[in-house]
Amino acid sequence: MIRKDGEQIVIPAAVIKRLPKYHRHLVRLLHQGVEKISSREFGKIVRVSAPQLRQDLNHFGNFGQQGYGYNVEKLYIALSKVIGIEKKSNMVLIGVGNLGQALINSTDFKRRGFHLAAVFDINPRLIGMTINGIKVRDITDLADYVQGHNVNIGVITVPENAAQKAAEELIAAGVKGIWNFAPVDLDLPKDVSVENEHLTEGLLRLSFKIKGKTKFNNKN
Amino acid sequence: MIRKDGEQIVIPAAVIKRLPKYHRHLVRLLHQGVEKISSREFGKIVRVSAPQLRQDLNHFGNFGQQGYGYNVEKLYIALSKVIGIEKKSNMVLIGVGNLGQALINSTDFKRRGFHLAAVFDINPRLIGMTINGIKVRDITDLADYVQGHNVNIGVITVPENAAQKAAEELIAAGVKGIWNFAPVDLDLPKDVSVENEHLTEGLLRLSFKIKGKTKFNNKN
Repeated sequence: MIRKDGEQIVIPAAVIKRLPKYHRHLVRLLHQGVEKISSREFGKIVRVSAPQLRQDLNHFGNFGQQGYGYNVEKLYIALSKVIGIEKKSNMVLIGVGNLGQALINSTDFKRRGFHLAAVFDINPRLIGMTINGIKVRDITDLADYVQGHNVNIGVITVPENAAQKAAEELIAAGVKGIWNFAPVDLDLPKDVSVENEHLTEGLLRLSFKIKGKTKFNNKN
Repeated sequence: MIRKDGEQIVIPAAVIKRLPKYHRHLVRLLHQGVEKISSREFGKIVRVSAPQLRQDLNHFGNFGQQGYGYNVEKLYIALSKVIGIEKKSNMVLIGVGNLGQALINSTDFKRRGFHLAAVFDINPRLIGMTINGIKVRDITDLADYVQGHNVNIGVITVPENAAQKAAEELIAAGVKGIWNFAPVDLDLPKDVSVENEHLTEGLLRLSFKIKGKTKFNNKN
């Protein structure tokens, strides 16, 4: 990223990984009416040590004030800018199955600044239905919709074997980022960003953690 | 983890993070009938350089043979053991909403060695229904079921405000690991493992990636 003074700075991947968590808790604190918070308190909430937290946030500018702490709203706005969500992002979703419907019904995106503008499916029984106030559209209308509505993110919740095609249609329509829930690695052009939610991999990580703890406990 | 020779070895977190991906592709290769694969080929599939891949896998033993490559089945079995899924894991799920139903209908766990044994809800309209061959049970039967069926993983797909209680019930019943989809940080005893799927954080990471690429493209 580029700072205001024009200097290009490199942010460590580990810091980037923690930003969404910081942002999530800032949203919550804002809703609770919290105005300022010390790095010690905030660190406790996000489960990161205060020095580590200060170091992380220093990458993006000088937000804290010694003896005062962080202004929650300013920090929230700054992190939103860093993440790239200072303006509402328009998303479309392809695949109105159970997972798609779970996402359509989620309130979590909206409060984080994402707007699910439209959802698409190929199933005639679903097309025309309204879910959480959003009409299910025919997939053949995707390109027109995306081009007319400033959509930059496409969510893929179709079955595994339909995911690559869905991604290609989104990209052809001009989408710049893909949030992929299908358990496949998509083949995408370099200028398109992708974030995979390979859910089963979380389950494998959990399994690995449980195994580690069990071993440790058996030793004692 | 402890090796056969009794020496305790520490596996870097970055390696552990990549294991589920290696495992996923090994499952696919096995299903396709592939018997052996070179580190160069396998590295291409998992998008990791061959030297990095060899270094990663060396943490767990000596699987490869110079000039032959990896035996896919042996590597699969070894990684399954490392991850802790060499035996089928029994899971229960709490919260049969859209997301819960998406997970119940997923075929991805089963082929990775996880068995969803039972699902629970508090909603009388759902209790007694059968989804993908699994009966929805009353949450009040959770403890009995978990204790009688060797369950070690609990999946939480309830709303945010019900997640902590669901976790406590699972833990009281003896579950050792929680796979949490509610967008909250659970307060858990130290001997319980947790893996959070805070989905919106993936969306924030995507947003950050898009922003980075857009900036880069504007510069050129």
